[in-house]
Amino acid sequence: MSISTEVQPLLINYKTLEEFKRFKEYGLQELTMLEDLQSNIVENNSESPFFGIYIGNAMIARMSLYRISAKYDNYFNPPQDYLELWKLEVLKDYQGKGYGKQLVDFAKSYHLPIKTNPRINSHGFWERLGFQKATYNMERDRGENPLLWLPEGVDEQPKEDS
Amino acid sequence: MSISTEVQPLLINYKTLEEFKRFKEYGLQELTMLEDLQSNIVENNSESPFFGIYIGNAMIARMSLYRISAKYDNYFNPPQDYLELWKLEVLKDYQGKGYGKQLVDFAKSYHLPIKTNPRINSHGFWERLGFQKATYNMERDRGENPLLWLPEGVDEQPKEDS
Repeated sequence: MSISTEVQPLLINYKTLEEFKRFKEYGLQELTMLEDLQSNIVENNSESPFFGIYIGNAMIARMSLYRISAKYDNYFNPPQDYLELWKLEVLKDYQGKGYGKQLVDFAKSYHLPIKTNPRINSHGFWERLGFQKATYNMERDRGENPLLWLPEGVDEQPKEDS
Repeated sequence: MSISTEVQPLLINYKTLEEFKRFKEYGLQELTMLEDLQSNIVENNSESPFFGIYIGNAMIARMSLYRISAKYDNYFNPPQDYLELWKLEVLKDYQGKGYGKQLVDFAKSYHLPIKTNPRINSHGFWERLGFQKATYNMERDRGENPLLWLPEGVDEQPKEDS
């Protein structure tokens, strides 16, 4: 059974937010989106930073993707706009079928550097997709384990204090 | 069996780093400390941002605690120096005995506001200790679920853009 699936931007509405509850990393971000919708702070079908993959009517994978302005870039050299990617997650029954890679490929299609802060035990996945560990910098990274994807011509930013 | 236990600063040495491997959130920070020690970038018994609790010779709980300068404060009002707390963890066999609270009480003893970004399923613990959810701000928090502890006279920083 082969179904054509595409990465699509997710709109904020009750259906999306209900589907989000099936993902492990449901947290303050999603709760806030729900509250904003309930109190009419955002309109139904507002844009969100989330992208997802559907099979039929069911969301089976998602990620949050956000463009950070060059002036806040502490990771890349030369400093430039980059993408921060978080909450990449494929529902358990659909793992190992390439949906995670499909989401990451979508992010790479912007041709901007990417930073993510994955769970420890997913490092193999990220390394296969060409991400590399950032040089740890406590002032910047605190408890994070940042991984970076460097497009052609982009390097890691050197540590200021070393 | 009641043993007097105290929170103590942890020095970077091979024994400490070996004990860190027993904790779930062992990550890039610890790997970097180990590499720095191996390549003599830091001396044996250098200071670290970690604090721990020992029972006998065994480290059974730890946290990382780092003072952030007021000029980087995006959480508290008025803006001020605060503590960022991460990797608070009590080994499984020692949970439910107050060691987590003991570490947090130690952090509170500095009389500075505290910010942490815990795993979702630990929110009950933090709320019992007087921490409250920050108002989610995507530009600032991305995939985090920040919790704040506000000492007397300190409020949450209002959102700039709302």
